[in-house]
Amino acid sequence: MIIDIPENSDFSIHNIPFGIFSTKDRSPRVGVAVGEHILDLAAVAELDVFDFNTALLEKDTLNDFISLGKEITTRVRKKIQYWLKDDESVLAGKPELFVKQSEAQMHMPVAIGDYTDFYSSLEHATNVGKMFRDPENALLPNWKHIPVGYHGRASSIIVSGQPIHRPKGQTKPNDAEAPVFGPTRRLDFELEMGFICGKETTLGESVSTKNAEDYIFGLVLFNDWSARDTQKWEYVPLGPFLAKNFASSISPWVVTLEALESFKLAGPKQEPEVLPYLQFEGNKNYDINLEVGIQPEKGEETTVCLSNFKHMYWNMAQQLAHHTVNGCNINIGDMMASGTISGKEENSFGSMLELSWGGTKPIKLNDGSERKFIEDGDTVTMRGYAQNGDIRVGFGEVTTKVLPAK
Amino acid sequence: MIIDIPENSDFSIHNIPFGIFSTKDRSPRVGVAVGEHILDLAAVAELDVFDFNTALLEKDTLNDFISLGKEITTRVRKKIQYWLKDDESVLAGKPELFVKQSEAQMHMPVAIGDYTDFYSSLEHATNVGKMFRDPENALLPNWKHIPVGYHGRASSIIVSGQPIHRPKGQTKPNDAEAPVFGPTRRLDFELEMGFICGKETTLGESVSTKNAEDYIFGLVLFNDWSARDTQKWEYVPLGPFLAKNFASSISPWVVTLEALESFKLAGPKQEPEVLPYLQFEGNKNYDINLEVGIQPEKGEETTVCLSNFKHMYWNMAQQLAHHTVNGCNINIGDMMASGTISGKEENSFGSMLELSWGGTKPIKLNDGSERKFIEDGDTVTMRGYAQNGDIRVGFGEVTTKVLPAK
Repeated sequence: MIIDIPENSDFSIHNIPFGIFSTKDRSPRVGVAVGEHILDLAAVAELDVFDFNTALLEKDTLNDFISLGKEITTRVRKKIQYWLKDDESVLAGKPELFVKQSEAQMHMPVAIGDYTDFYSSLEHATNVGKMFRDPENALLPNWKHIPVGYHGRASSIIVSGQPIHRPKGQTKPNDAEAPVFGPTRRLDFELEMGFICGKETTLGESVSTKNAEDYIFGLVLFNDWSARDTQKWEYVPLGPFLAKNFASSISPWVVTLEALESFKLAGPKQEPEVLPYLQFEGNKNYDINLEVGIQPEKGEETTVCLSNFKHMYWNMAQQLAHHTVNGCNINIGDMMASGTISGKEENSFGSMLELSWGGTKPIKLNDGSERKFIEDGDTVTMRGYAQNGDIRVGFGEVTTKVLPAK
Repeated sequence: MIIDIPENSDFSIHNIPFGIFSTKDRSPRVGVAVGEHILDLAAVAELDVFDFNTALLEKDTLNDFISLGKEITTRVRKKIQYWLKDDESVLAGKPELFVKQSEAQMHMPVAIGDYTDFYSSLEHATNVGKMFRDPENALLPNWKHIPVGYHGRASSIIVSGQPIHRPKGQTKPNDAEAPVFGPTRRLDFELEMGFICGKETTLGESVSTKNAEDYIFGLVLFNDWSARDTQKWEYVPLGPFLAKNFASSISPWVVTLEALESFKLAGPKQEPEVLPYLQFEGNKNYDINLEVGIQPEKGEETTVCLSNFKHMYWNMAQQLAHHTVNGCNINIGDMMASGTISGKEENSFGSMLELSWGGTKPIKLNDGSERKFIEDGDTVTMRGYAQNGDIRVGFGEVTTKVLPAK
């Protein structure tokens, strides 16, 4: 092995995720995570080993690299795997090609054109329906027919490590006649995964469930920050707006769909049967362990949620087929998030709204404090990895500290 | 006058709107509409008369030009007005600087990062509430407190002249047990205006109603195409998605806020009083006449709607202040649309949904045919202009033909 990869590293030889990093001495460029290092692809390109226009490895987003197409990008990934394993490869004896992750700064991996958020976990939709609407009819009639989704704000998607300020907004206390304005009192995370589109369509074109994977470059962890009190007041009839668009945080390394291939499994049975354009063949869910930790300003982190991407009722192929069935066009770099990923168990719920059941059952942290929602000074960290025996492919983390309202 | 401007032209000397055009012999670039011509700013730049980097006049979007800032862009606009009026100016004797609009192709004026659609007409919200929800409680409790809005799809915003295909999607007929799939049977337009952001903010920053105009570069006509049957089935609880994201059409010329300054007037009185961050001083509505025509495949156009931008309950300054009050960041080129602009009179309703009252009162066209919604082969054209005595500032038109479903 050209470089040491610690056992249990998210960034094993089986992974090779792409990202954008910078160092003190050089501006943002394309790299891949390998163990605790980053292989600097812009530097590798100087060895004249790639057969494409390597100027795009000097870019500060992956969009141009992704636009090369899967034929090329998967070949690059495989070449890197091969080089890393071969002690006499072009990477041998060139430690300058590897940057320590601890000495690099990560940036947004892609320029996101449009961002769509789905709502594809049955358990999450049911939980929210019980709390926001009618406990007896928690799931709306369309939910099992449509991968429900809505458009979100692309501009405020930020990369792991960037803190956010508690947002201000309108809320209407139950006992008040009129709304009031101030910092949200119900700041929440949502544990999601997001996929990044890797191929564009033209207006009027649709993507079938069969071909959907050609259009998915890779995945990241996605924290869809939410202000629950604002959401409750504003969301009828046109959906969440300011309750969601103040920030969403993503992990910096884009794990390719190919790296996740061996972790595929069947999703929940869909009943009633879905319309033909949403039907699919084969396994389309992914077994990816997910967790969320909360670290208070002064104190250690407490894991508050253990979930899994496999819980999704609607899979990514169905989401993409639905999104484009009306001819809506997608672009390289578009982000599509899963919606909160909750399982059946109470400790697998992917938001504080569900974990504390609307603030009625506070969560105990290791330092003895309690949380109904996220407090100023808290750092929320999401982690995710797939594991199959010795083979591990992980996402690293998305971590975000919450600062007081400005 | 350097060039003849027909009386009653939308593109009078008082207007000077910016757009992106191309000609047979030259790729897309920045121009301004003057009467029936386009002043080719990339060509003017070759006269060495501008004091900024004129390479950005060769771009295929206005974004870089807009990013120069209002101080420069308004000076450019004034210079052009001055040059056009002065028969001995730098433009004199240079007919090659002027391209006939009939010989140019118009393109999308800006690259749109994020697109937000508001819902700011009291009459429209009331009409839709009556039809989609409860006639007795048409207006939801939050409507007079919040400039309700939601995120839309930026990728599918197209320029006037580009046809669209009737979209397909899920709908659920009232008498059916399960949804069905097929071309929408309730294709509709929505008469809106959109403003284009001209200045960016950083995440966490807010724009006050007082400063909002600094952040608005200009306006276009906006047709927010809608599939009403899909909308009805999908929109609860997260808002419209596929019912809207298959296309929105805009007019190609961006009329600057400065050109509209003399058409300001007071908007409707807002009661109850709005929260402090939504309060404003001075006149913030604009008196802009709007109309919609439907032209069948074989036949003349019938005007089906006469409305006015002045009807808006919430003004653009309030929309922008609301959008950013939680720290949501905006970028140059972002599009914010007004929502359907309906007046009180039945012929001022800005959508077929309202004009035909949910399909119960068909509209008669001049050729004797009737319309409940838009049919294949129909061309929908929106026009808008402000007029004050002899002074006219217009938007031209946004025209879109509807082709059968693919």
